Amino acid sequence: MPNPIEFWFDFSSPYSYIASELIDALAAKHGRTVNWRPMMLGSALKVTGSPLLVSVPLKGEYSKRDFDRSARYHGLPFKFPEVFPVLTLAAARGYYWLQDEEPGLARAFAHAVFRAYWVDGRNIGELEVVQDIVNKLGLDATTFALAIATPEAKERVKRESELAVSKGMFGAPYFIVDGEPFWGADRLPQIERWLESGGF
Amino acid sequence: MPNPIEFWFDFSSPYSYIASELIDALAAKHGRTVNWRPMMLGSALKVTGSPLLVSVPLKGEYSKRDFDRSARYHGLPFKFPEVFPVLTLAAARGYYWLQDEEPGLARAFAHAVFRAYWVDGRNIGELEVVQDIVNKLGLDATTFALAIATPEAKERVKRESELAVSKGMFGAPYFIVDGEPFWGADRLPQIERWLESGGF
Repeated sequence: MPNPIEFWFDFSSPYSYIASELIDALAAKHGRTVNWRPMMLGSALKVTGSPLLVSVPLKGEYSKRDFDRSARYHGLPFKFPEVFPVLTLAAARGYYWLQDEEPGLARAFAHAVFRAYWVDGRNIGELEVVQDIVNKLGLDATTFALAIATPEAKERVKRESELAVSKGMFGAPYFIVDGEPFWGADRLPQIERWLESGGF
Repeated sequence: MPNPIEFWFDFSSPYSYIASELIDALAAKHGRTVNWRPMMLGSALKVTGSPLLVSVPLKGEYSKRDFDRSARYHGLPFKFPEVFPVLTLAAARGYYWLQDEEPGLARAFAHAVFRAYWVDGRNIGELEVVQDIVNKLGLDATTFALAIATPEAKERVKRESELAVSKGMFGAPYFIVDGEPFWGADRLPQIERWLESGGF
């Protein structure tokens, strides 16, 4: 079996949302699976000393235009949310818990979280919003809330975030394909070439 | 006549070198010309408060790998120069002077400067290196040196750099297509779609 593609992201990253809608199909075309790894992008920005993209003069304004245009380019719905950024701890903890307990639903949960924020503008930083998503997947929202409040659930996301940085992650989305790192939804064409040719 | 594409760049920017090898053919395919506009990227980085990309922790190391891989992806020779960054004032002043005096040679000069730095590792921050390039184009290197030392030549690059920032430029390469800004060699596919469809 070939290595799965590592897909590191934060649910609050717009380019991660774009990549999330494309990466599984791209990988499948080349006989690969994708290991989705939500993390707290703030951990990486702290290490690099980087400000939030949208708050940089000139670059921030351009970026908002580029988020929108990049989504249109890929035929994806997109609307910049009113509340930004948000802390996506509940969603990330929930993802890992689902991956262990209900692995068949973890991917559907992740897509629903991304779309709730980047299409419908819902504040995924609020536990109630994440619980509503869980509820619509047919799971018990109270069980979910209790599960993600455990020390283990908290520790897991902290550990994953540190692991991401230790693998060189400084921005999202961040992919690792057979040891080769790729940053950005705009590197998907290079990832495709890499998968086709076994490196170039 | 459709608008020319504005191509703003600094000769010391690796992604500008990559774009410089691709943009004219892309534009020609869609009946467009390209207006090459060298500037001093430092002016833009000062406004945005951004550090030099390669000096950012994690991101800097990744970037060097990405410069190389992105060049290979496009089938272009590339070697990160030993002296980096360099101040490309002589080359930029020379470009605008040639554009006025020997417009047929300006593009060949620009390609030669980019390749001298990004392929052959020559220090294009040194006047002698730029003069050697000029000499090989069949022009008099002393005339060139005198021409780019005038107050007009100096003022021109200063003005172009300010103009670039006033148009929202914060990084290189920066393209404007019918009023729409695009940042990065990795936005060439979006530029292509834009040219095909008149916006999307």
